[in-house]
Amino acid sequence: MSGQTFKYWDTGEFMRKAREAYPALYEKKYCSLARTVPGRDEWMRSGSSFILDFGTHIVGKLALEVECDNVPDSPLHVVFDFAEHTCEFDPRPYAGGLSSSWIQRETVYADNPLEAVKTSRRYAFRYVKITFPANTAYRVRYAGCVATGTTSADENAVSGLPSGTGEDVRKIDGVGLRTLKNCMQSVFEDGPKRDRRLWLGDLYLQAKTDLFTYKNTGLIKRCLYLFAALPHEDGCLSSAVFPEPMLKNQSWILHDYALFFAGVLRDLYEFEKDEKLVKELWPVAFRQAQIAAGAADGNGQVPVDMYFTDWCPGLDKTCAAQGTAVAMLNDTLFLSGIAGDGAAGDYLEKQIERLGARLLSLFDRESGLFVCPGGQISVHSQMWGALSGVIDRETQRTVLKNIAGRSDAVDTVTPYAKHYLAEALFRAGLRDEAEALVKSYWGGMVREGADCFPEIYVPSDPGASPYGDARINSYCHAWSCTASYFIRKYGIV
Amino acid sequence: MSGQTFKYWDTGEFMRKAREAYPALYEKKYCSLARTVPGRDEWMRSGSSFILDFGTHIVGKLALEVECDNVPDSPLHVVFDFAEHTCEFDPRPYAGGLSSSWIQRETVYADNPLEAVKTSRRYAFRYVKITFPANTAYRVRYAGCVATGTTSADENAVSGLPSGTGEDVRKIDGVGLRTLKNCMQSVFEDGPKRDRRLWLGDLYLQAKTDLFTYKNTGLIKRCLYLFAALPHEDGCLSSAVFPEPMLKNQSWILHDYALFFAGVLRDLYEFEKDEKLVKELWPVAFRQAQIAAGAADGNGQVPVDMYFTDWCPGLDKTCAAQGTAVAMLNDTLFLSGIAGDGAAGDYLEKQIERLGARLLSLFDRESGLFVCPGGQISVHSQMWGALSGVIDRETQRTVLKNIAGRSDAVDTVTPYAKHYLAEALFRAGLRDEAEALVKSYWGGMVREGADCFPEIYVPSDPGASPYGDARINSYCHAWSCTASYFIRKYGIV
Repeated sequence: MSGQTFKYWDTGEFMRKAREAYPALYEKKYCSLARTVPGRDEWMRSGSSFILDFGTHIVGKLALEVECDNVPDSPLHVVFDFAEHTCEFDPRPYAGGLSSSWIQRETVYADNPLEAVKTSRRYAFRYVKITFPANTAYRVRYAGCVATGTTSADENAVSGLPSGTGEDVRKIDGVGLRTLKNCMQSVFEDGPKRDRRLWLGDLYLQAKTDLFTYKNTGLIKRCLYLFAALPHEDGCLSSAVFPEPMLKNQSWILHDYALFFAGVLRDLYEFEKDEKLVKELWPVAFRQAQIAAGAADGNGQVPVDMYFTDWCPGLDKTCAAQGTAVAMLNDTLFLSGIAGDGAAGDYLEKQIERLGARLLSLFDRESGLFVCPGGQISVHSQMWGALSGVIDRETQRTVLKNIAGRSDAVDTVTPYAKHYLAEALFRAGLRDEAEALVKSYWGGMVREGADCFPEIYVPSDPGASPYGDARINSYCHAWSCTASYFIRKYGIV
Repeated sequence: MSGQTFKYWDTGEFMRKAREAYPALYEKKYCSLARTVPGRDEWMRSGSSFILDFGTHIVGKLALEVECDNVPDSPLHVVFDFAEHTCEFDPRPYAGGLSSSWIQRETVYADNPLEAVKTSRRYAFRYVKITFPANTAYRVRYAGCVATGTTSADENAVSGLPSGTGEDVRKIDGVGLRTLKNCMQSVFEDGPKRDRRLWLGDLYLQAKTDLFTYKNTGLIKRCLYLFAALPHEDGCLSSAVFPEPMLKNQSWILHDYALFFAGVLRDLYEFEKDEKLVKELWPVAFRQAQIAAGAADGNGQVPVDMYFTDWCPGLDKTCAAQGTAVAMLNDTLFLSGIAGDGAAGDYLEKQIERLGARLLSLFDRESGLFVCPGGQISVHSQMWGALSGVIDRETQRTVLKNIAGRSDAVDTVTPYAKHYLAEALFRAGLRDEAEALVKSYWGGMVREGADCFPEIYVPSDPGASPYGDARINSYCHAWSCTASYFIRKYGIV
């Protein structure tokens, strides 16, 4: 789609701006040495292998050096198996639905084993299994291994935590920072192991966290411009952009994700107060609101199939989708003021009222909970009901306290969904409950040994996977990084 | 070993000259398109594979292009299995003694399937099996494949054969030319699939053929200088030089191979009449003769364990090694005249007489054959007995005719050994027999479909391998290229 033919805004201009917004991609590199190494005296060949533990999650390339016990008279066959999590070394056949080509393996036949054997591609890993399959006439011994990581996050931009901060909170914050850093590449990626895609839902949470940590606003702008440059025909933004192999939008449309564009723009405005940027991107943000509100039925109910909400089997999204729409229409309304678009403001106020009234009709005063038409009670309904602002803060507190006592409710399964619960608790003024959630949920992952926050975490089901095989799960996932945002925004110590 | 400390000649100077002798390495490239391609309509993934036949043997890299039936949202996993001979596609586990890392496989995870998928290494192949193992969300279809070959042979330097040349001879010559071309890289390699090493025994036959075909004398000089630059401590040349991974000599010493240095230098002198080169390398050539003759025992018998002769189980090399030594001492004597080293000439004449007398003592006048002390009769004994010149041409003819009738004799198994038989027949004046041998032996390989001449060819045993697995055999091997030398030197039509 070219800028000339798109009727809503100039996509070509936004593509140029995306390129200018953060031109110094990947300028930050870091090196890590393997912490645990095999015995120095072990000479290997014919299938020998060992596992290196780098002690921390890295996104980058690897260089292995070996010694040879004789002149290497044939190539050195080396297989590198990279893993974020040790479960990935499970040798059983892969059974997942996602493409097996994401499994991180590189096979090298090194013509010169006397030089460092380097991987050609970027991997996401903490562990590397290295195997020498060939029956070479010579044997090799481990001499050293260096990982060179890449990121567009600048660690020097991160402020220290207050001196009174507890060790548990420092650890959670460190894992959140690392998660975000390793997802920050040429765009905010969802996960550096798999997909490596710019999703609007992930961007919303990454940008929130970035503004309190690395403050790479250029990268946020680049991502906003990319979405603006690659809309669908009706002006609806795509749920994701492929930065590689060709810059292209994803065909899948999600209205919650499209609405988050306004959320990112509002957060960035509140950080930088850049009115010019808001005015420039205002047509894009407003169009998403028009599309989302326009899709609501006669009752003012938005179409639930157009909302992601969570990876949660059987979840009724009626309340949660409605709450998301109203919450983000409010952000769009805020932006209309900055953009000086009074007519749009009027339109948005009416839509907020119409969609809000529908949401309020789903609030059950007796139980003090949002209840879906079929009777389902879920955490998702309450948190989005609260965030929508259709009930006052006191009622928000009631709703959120009530759901905490309901073990029969459908619960969240992703750190993405858990983010909105924590945010709802903080905004409703339930600070103790919010802090306890951050410390128990994100802290739980840390206590279980996570070096980065994974895309899915169900404390009662460690092998949970939306893809049929936990080995393909992403163990460093953008939407899980917001623990650092909560710690820094709300001053958790 | 540095030039300063080596007492026989200046190895540093020879290393510099090796670099200067043929600086324009690999300047010749050629392209080949796959001749047979799979159906254009076949969409593939999840283990689909197909085999391309390039119709001819190529040494080089590959670029594969595919079409995708959808946006490629994950890497494309491609496995390339290269084969010189279809037997290499046999899926049974490899059982050979040589390193399995020579098996030609490259695994690529292409982050951008929309670009050509290129191999990172050079392979020797006619066939390529291409497999797409992953369960990608998209499927791929073959769009094209280009092999880019490399050689230091200039095909424009090759003269045409006389107009009366038969089609069978033209075919044999073509296969010989291709074999040599594909072994000519930064050095004369023994085989481009495996070893990729500069062996003196192979160089001797390659240089002979090169002077009648591609005439790349710079490459011959480079190889002579390399051997001269990397001697063992006593001045003996190594049987081989590793051009990669580091320029180094092979520890294995073979006196026949060391003596062939003089043979190559003589052949080159007779082609170019470069006296300066002979004088420069004379100390190297003479030292090999001193070492080989000095190793003979009180009877004038050279040590058979220091001679290669053939890959032939149970062969008694007493006559063949002795014949090789005498033949090559004769070449060295010729060079002493060019070098103007009278004292060396006197020494060589005495050694030729002493070693020749021993060889003549093994000639059995009754049977008209050279017979080893234990009674073994072999083709090898006769051909080298003839080439040594210790018997006159008429007796040479007798010996060579006699052995042809002896089905009980140990026979040659490699084209390398067969070369010396053909040479002995031509030199003895048995032109018809020599031509018949070239047409039956090298022609036999062509009739069986060879596109290049392999390292081993036993008509009665197609699976023969010196390494325990025919899949690791080299099917384009330097020492087998001399059919073209015979055709062009002796005018076979």
